[in-house]
Amino acid sequence: MNKKLLHLPLIFCLFLSVLPTFSIFSQAADAENEDAFFIRHIHDAALIQGKSYPWLYHLTKKIGARLAGSPQAAAAVEYTRQMLDTLGLDSVWLQPCMVPHWVRGEREVVRIAQSSMGTVDLNALAIGNSIGTGSDGISAEVVEVQNFEMLEKLGAAKLKGKIVFFNRPFDPTQLNTFAAYGGAVDQRAYGASEAAKYGSIGVVVRSMASGLNDDPHTGGLAYREGMPKIPAVAISTNDAELLSSLLKLSPVTIYMRTNCQSFPDKQSFNVIGEIRGSEKPDEIILVGGHLDSWDVGEGAHDDGTGCVQSMDVLQLFKRLNYKPKRTIRCVLFMNEENGLMGGRTYGDEAKRKGEFHLAAIESDRGGFTPRGFTVDGETEVFSKKFPAMQPWLTLLEPYGLRIKKGGGGADISPLKTQGTLLIGYEPDSQRYFDYHHTAADVFETVNKRELELGTAAMTSLVFLIDKYGLNQD
Amino acid sequence: MNKKLLHLPLIFCLFLSVLPTFSIFSQAADAENEDAFFIRHIHDAALIQGKSYPWLYHLTKKIGARLAGSPQAAAAVEYTRQMLDTLGLDSVWLQPCMVPHWVRGEREVVRIAQSSMGTVDLNALAIGNSIGTGSDGISAEVVEVQNFEMLEKLGAAKLKGKIVFFNRPFDPTQLNTFAAYGGAVDQRAYGASEAAKYGSIGVVVRSMASGLNDDPHTGGLAYREGMPKIPAVAISTNDAELLSSLLKLSPVTIYMRTNCQSFPDKQSFNVIGEIRGSEKPDEIILVGGHLDSWDVGEGAHDDGTGCVQSMDVLQLFKRLNYKPKRTIRCVLFMNEENGLMGGRTYGDEAKRKGEFHLAAIESDRGGFTPRGFTVDGETEVFSKKFPAMQPWLTLLEPYGLRIKKGGGGADISPLKTQGTLLIGYEPDSQRYFDYHHTAADVFETVNKRELELGTAAMTSLVFLIDKYGLNQD
Repeated sequence: MNKKLLHLPLIFCLFLSVLPTFSIFSQAADAENEDAFFIRHIHDAALIQGKSYPWLYHLTKKIGARLAGSPQAAAAVEYTRQMLDTLGLDSVWLQPCMVPHWVRGEREVVRIAQSSMGTVDLNALAIGNSIGTGSDGISAEVVEVQNFEMLEKLGAAKLKGKIVFFNRPFDPTQLNTFAAYGGAVDQRAYGASEAAKYGSIGVVVRSMASGLNDDPHTGGLAYREGMPKIPAVAISTNDAELLSSLLKLSPVTIYMRTNCQSFPDKQSFNVIGEIRGSEKPDEIILVGGHLDSWDVGEGAHDDGTGCVQSMDVLQLFKRLNYKPKRTIRCVLFMNEENGLMGGRTYGDEAKRKGEFHLAAIESDRGGFTPRGFTVDGETEVFSKKFPAMQPWLTLLEPYGLRIKKGGGGADISPLKTQGTLLIGYEPDSQRYFDYHHTAADVFETVNKRELELGTAAMTSLVFLIDKYGLNQD
Repeated sequence: MNKKLLHLPLIFCLFLSVLPTFSIFSQAADAENEDAFFIRHIHDAALIQGKSYPWLYHLTKKIGARLAGSPQAAAAVEYTRQMLDTLGLDSVWLQPCMVPHWVRGEREVVRIAQSSMGTVDLNALAIGNSIGTGSDGISAEVVEVQNFEMLEKLGAAKLKGKIVFFNRPFDPTQLNTFAAYGGAVDQRAYGASEAAKYGSIGVVVRSMASGLNDDPHTGGLAYREGMPKIPAVAISTNDAELLSSLLKLSPVTIYMRTNCQSFPDKQSFNVIGEIRGSEKPDEIILVGGHLDSWDVGEGAHDDGTGCVQSMDVLQLFKRLNYKPKRTIRCVLFMNEENGLMGGRTYGDEAKRKGEFHLAAIESDRGGFTPRGFTVDGETEVFSKKFPAMQPWLTLLEPYGLRIKKGGGGADISPLKTQGTLLIGYEPDSQRYFDYHHTAADVFETVNKRELELGTAAMTSLVFLIDKYGLNQD
């Protein structure tokens, strides 16, 4: 060993002992420099020694789509538990939860059976939670509507026995594509029950997509209590345009056959790992994503990326030998897509145990280039804790990160009433709805650096919350 | 016509006549609201009525790669001229320029001929401007180096008659990938002449890429005066890793055969269109990209996107019926990739004619999601005009746009000494060097919304410069 190195700690102590003679101002400046330095370290480590990308490779390419209740979901639980086990955390465990078990079955057929163009097979996917049509399928004339008000105007006279085609597109002028999604998704979520009110026998929904292409987008629907359940499918945006054009020329009949079924609930798990805090172990900072995905594609952006980023936050802290004051907990939630049973179970258990989550950060908007964070909470929590984050903006700005008011995330939402500040990781949104809930949501669409920079952004924010807490001075 | 509409102008005049009684402060606020309103209009129009995407489709899919001097470059000149002709501009013209004419010829062969693994064909592209090897090819032992200092240390004793392998990768910790490119590109640009100093007979360069994959990246080299010209190729980053591993085990011989040739200069053109200013027609605001590309892929991000965005700025102003005070000129430069003759000719002609370019905006960093603008200029120009842009930040921030010091662009650089403020459009950089100068730089990698938001960003800045000029009050 080089003997000169032995003197370093002494020199360091001498240096530190000089510091208190500086002014408060320069102490604050030193702390800010130190923070900037550590955040830079976090980014370097994420880009050079991050595990997000290889973990995502395994989750998408070796396991693939992993709908709650499927064998792949079970494999994802086991794989991520094993990976967390390799990190030397203070604890890793599985939290049981019961989840719905919906199965698509044999590939659906959605066909324009009669039109001025003859017969055309459409690119379609049954919507999740939908009932199947039965093996004979159903066939009926199609009525196009843009929204529920149009349904009401048409009424049973025009809709009874028909298939309703919901065709309201995303508003392209919404800068954030999640706002466009929010403005259209009622058609997929509640279209079936709304159409059933008037005696319709099935529903075809224009895919929830930013642009025109051939990929149908699945997703969940909710049947309203007391309404007959009718089958629902989503067709690609290109096919929605085609169907709409044909309807302008002459009546169109659609044949659809879907083979989906719901089975009794199954047991599954949230996967959890944590580093216990050294000073305030009872203040938990949660970071998470959801482990399940829809049953097509590989669940890459939704939400493989959020899971591996959350795991990587812990990996980076261990690698950088960071000893948190507070408990940093990674939670991979099960069943966000069709039931939220992982998130609900987690919230219930936290309440039952009297756990306090200071903040919860969810990454569930894709693995794209970072833009910042959106923050939510009950009025009193938000108004106290959001301002505490403002001094950090200068540290985050060099990485293109902003903090603003906005949604947290579905899985962490049950913590809202427990005094938790909810934080959504916000990547750039432009490409998300090209892939969301489609066969195209695969590993190849994730850029390694964009993913890793997202990991670094989340790790940096967790570091600041851990170091400073969320109470303004 | 609805008679009620006839009363609107009168009502509007009455409303305006009330305004002057407001305070200066509220006038300023009104102007800012009006600007915000127009910038929102620009974005809506770009997203709904933009032409960038269909124009890019034609340029990439119907014309394709368009190296200066190629028939495709001529087709691109003609196509973009015709598209500008459809816009009802005040003038559209071609500016002649002489350009180098380099041709790749038959596909190159780069092969590990002897190694502990036997023979392996590598994914390679001759580097632009390189001489060919002759039809027999060349064969020699390989020496790996990281930089020119290592070359000097090894000297002629170790390098004479050898093929030099430059293998310094991008620094992954650079947040902006252009900085990583800047730190590695000397190997491609000057490696051949540096190796030739010591009697080497050929050069293999690790591709200028952010990550590991199989795509070789071409690009330009410059032979230094008085040095022997030796052939140079780029190999994929995966193959660079392989070659480096094999070199650790035992000596490696490479065989390379390239068929590139340089021919006499050819005439080509910059394509120009403009809307003449109503108040200050002699103050030109230039917006542009480069029409040529390398000869592989489709020149989508480099720089089809910059061209169609620049054309679309004029299209949007015409569509929105905006009458600029100053002259707005779109310039599609020829030959940025291997000579910059379009940019140089344009700069020379501007000087000769005594034209004054108040600002020039270049888009040549890909068609990715907008981040803002980087600004450059001669010291006095920059220090006067950069501050004039600061009041606009609040207008641009809602679109995620920042303005900071940084490069303008290669094509507009000759205007720097003519008092022009140079501005580079800055999209997110993370994915650019996945595609740059490769066969993978194709239309499908461009996201329609990201492209259109870039167009809107550029149009918004041109609007502000046109309306307010660049002199601080």
